[in-house]
Amino acid sequence: MTTKSLPGGVCAPQGFKAAGLHVGFRQNTEKPDLALILSDVNCAAAAVYTLNKVQGAPLGVTRQNIADGHARGILCNSSNANTCAPGGVQLAQNCCKLLADATALAPEDFVVASTGVIGQVLPIEPFERGIPPLVSALSADGCRDAAAAIMTTDTVMKEIALEFTLGGVPCRMGAIGKGSGMINPNMATMLIFITTDVAIAPALLQKALGDEVQLSFNQITVDGDTSTNDMVAVLASGLSGNAEITAPGADYDAFCAVLSEVCVWMSRAIAADGEGATKLLECVVTGAPSDTLARLIAKTVVGSDLFKAAMFGADANWGRALCAIGYTPGDFPVDHISVTLKSAAGQVQVCKESVHHPYSEDDAARILAEKEIGVLIDMGEGAGQGTAWGCDLTYDYVKINGDYRS
Amino acid sequence: MTTKSLPGGVCAPQGFKAAGLHVGFRQNTEKPDLALILSDVNCAAAAVYTLNKVQGAPLGVTRQNIADGHARGILCNSSNANTCAPGGVQLAQNCCKLLADATALAPEDFVVASTGVIGQVLPIEPFERGIPPLVSALSADGCRDAAAAIMTTDTVMKEIALEFTLGGVPCRMGAIGKGSGMINPNMATMLIFITTDVAIAPALLQKALGDEVQLSFNQITVDGDTSTNDMVAVLASGLSGNAEITAPGADYDAFCAVLSEVCVWMSRAIAADGEGATKLLECVVTGAPSDTLARLIAKTVVGSDLFKAAMFGADANWGRALCAIGYTPGDFPVDHISVTLKSAAGQVQVCKESVHHPYSEDDAARILAEKEIGVLIDMGEGAGQGTAWGCDLTYDYVKINGDYRS
Repeated sequence: MTTKSLPGGVCAPQGFKAAGLHVGFRQNTEKPDLALILSDVNCAAAAVYTLNKVQGAPLGVTRQNIADGHARGILCNSSNANTCAPGGVQLAQNCCKLLADATALAPEDFVVASTGVIGQVLPIEPFERGIPPLVSALSADGCRDAAAAIMTTDTVMKEIALEFTLGGVPCRMGAIGKGSGMINPNMATMLIFITTDVAIAPALLQKALGDEVQLSFNQITVDGDTSTNDMVAVLASGLSGNAEITAPGADYDAFCAVLSEVCVWMSRAIAADGEGATKLLECVVTGAPSDTLARLIAKTVVGSDLFKAAMFGADANWGRALCAIGYTPGDFPVDHISVTLKSAAGQVQVCKESVHHPYSEDDAARILAEKEIGVLIDMGEGAGQGTAWGCDLTYDYVKINGDYRS
Repeated sequence: MTTKSLPGGVCAPQGFKAAGLHVGFRQNTEKPDLALILSDVNCAAAAVYTLNKVQGAPLGVTRQNIADGHARGILCNSSNANTCAPGGVQLAQNCCKLLADATALAPEDFVVASTGVIGQVLPIEPFERGIPPLVSALSADGCRDAAAAIMTTDTVMKEIALEFTLGGVPCRMGAIGKGSGMINPNMATMLIFITTDVAIAPALLQKALGDEVQLSFNQITVDGDTSTNDMVAVLASGLSGNAEITAPGADYDAFCAVLSEVCVWMSRAIAADGEGATKLLECVVTGAPSDTLARLIAKTVVGSDLFKAAMFGADANWGRALCAIGYTPGDFPVDHISVTLKSAAGQVQVCKESVHHPYSEDDAARILAEKEIGVLIDMGEGAGQGTAWGCDLTYDYVKINGDYRS
């Protein structure tokens, strides 16, 4: 699948406008804190949600609203998660009503999301005050404002747009995202909003998203904490004019390939912007008994605090990778493992047949000084492969998360 | 069970001597690095080992040596784990032979353990040089030297001894331990060596240890990493003169109660001395559907980096506890959770029925300023209970583990 990058983010696909405004959830800043993405037409809609049993109120409301497979827009506030607070469901529903009034649509037409502190009541006033001007501010240039409005501890704005063809018809897909720890009380839930003008049946859109999330977003870890509010939602306007994708086949596969490109890009961006991170870690496991096990091993290695701390220290401490492989759940052989460390500065094999492989510590230090580190693990026992992304564990992670909330 | 604390550690029970010497595994220090515990008589022996699939060579050798349920002594070096290095099994066997020569016992009479860097060949020379003087140094006052010799990043020496009666006969149990991260490449495996003069059949000793470990050592977490070299071993000399425990019953239960007291004391000591830790966290879960689930929830909460960082910052961020409860594996209700924070400075309820419970932030800050924090979680849904221990996540954890090995 050939894709071309272009500007515009979620507004790049036909039919979408966006806006982001400061409406007052945050008191001491002018940073935008309420985002809206709206489609000119009704969209096929799909979403996946956190697996945490404690879930934010907006997730249940969104689940109900898109149960019919359709939506028109996405509303998201930052600074308060609307989670573990009394009256949260009612409040999320009231937000949808305010939005319906301001857009002459139905309350059930909207995906709603929140990110921020858990356990505090989300006030309705900023929504009452902010939604009418937010709707007025909607524009085809509004993606960056919307992306800014959903940021919390993120240090980098995350937006992407790709162009591609489907059955000879030019199509587009765009996305904005936020997330830098996996969880939030200091505001770090992962939220991803994707738009496309591809015509695709809701059930297939849901399947494509559900499958892709296993390979991308579920393979990121910053601190192993699963947020109560994670959500990935996609709206497909169908305005590109392609023949609607209603069954698996070449068009569906092509769509999935683009969706994968967007989701992997976002996954890497979120891992690289992990709270306090100085390095992106990409662990690629090959030669495993199965793909599932390969993904699990990769995620366990990039999730090990000890390995993450070693990467912060640019220490080629491959014993910690072996140790993490060894405590990955499951029964599998561990006697023929190779480990190679790789970056823009080169690569060096540090372990062969599960024991030390001679290497130059200087080479290793030079390679590990880079901002993006590949950890290539060959399990030597099969054809399974998988990738996971993470970041190093730094003083700043502790600082960000040890600081008092207020 | 009434117990009385006394000095002497592993040498307190009748029949045991110990020693610790610097024999040269570490180059730049005079810190003792080889420990020996020896019994005057053959002992019932039991051990439990790490569940990591990558295991240090000494573990396999120990497993073989005590397969007959008996041993005479325990040899342990620090600074090199003898793991993921060629020839490790042969080397561990050779150590047993050197020890057999020096003691006129059999190589199979010994438990061997190592802790330190993974992936580097453990040299035999320090053993050859060190074992004869180590045997000569054995004494009833040698426990502290042995305890010092197994320390790595530990900041506090860990030894305990208790006196109690069994069927009217005075008995003793002692232990030394080390461990401050869960794993080692910078030397932090958990090792616990327990001695007792109780007479007990090997099979029951193994059962008592195996059951107890689930409630104590397996409920500690410093960084979630499971070492390749963890081992808990116990030797029972039988010299107290009690009627040998050969079947479950009152004496067995009493023995298990003392074993539990020793193991819980060690678990707390290890968690409190977690790498970089400034606070001991004890999470007590009650009202859970089962004891197993209660233990799992408790361990997930004290294992959450976000919660650990909040405790470092003395931040009553109970949302992070709720979040960790929510992602604990298993299907259980999360709507009636209470959370109370407790320390020597008092206690404060911060969450009721899974939502915010009004409290004074000043009270909470005062309580969380203490060195030992209790996190009391009532799941409100059953009679299951369990406890886990951990520590806060600090700048120093990152420093210790991000620093270069050499």
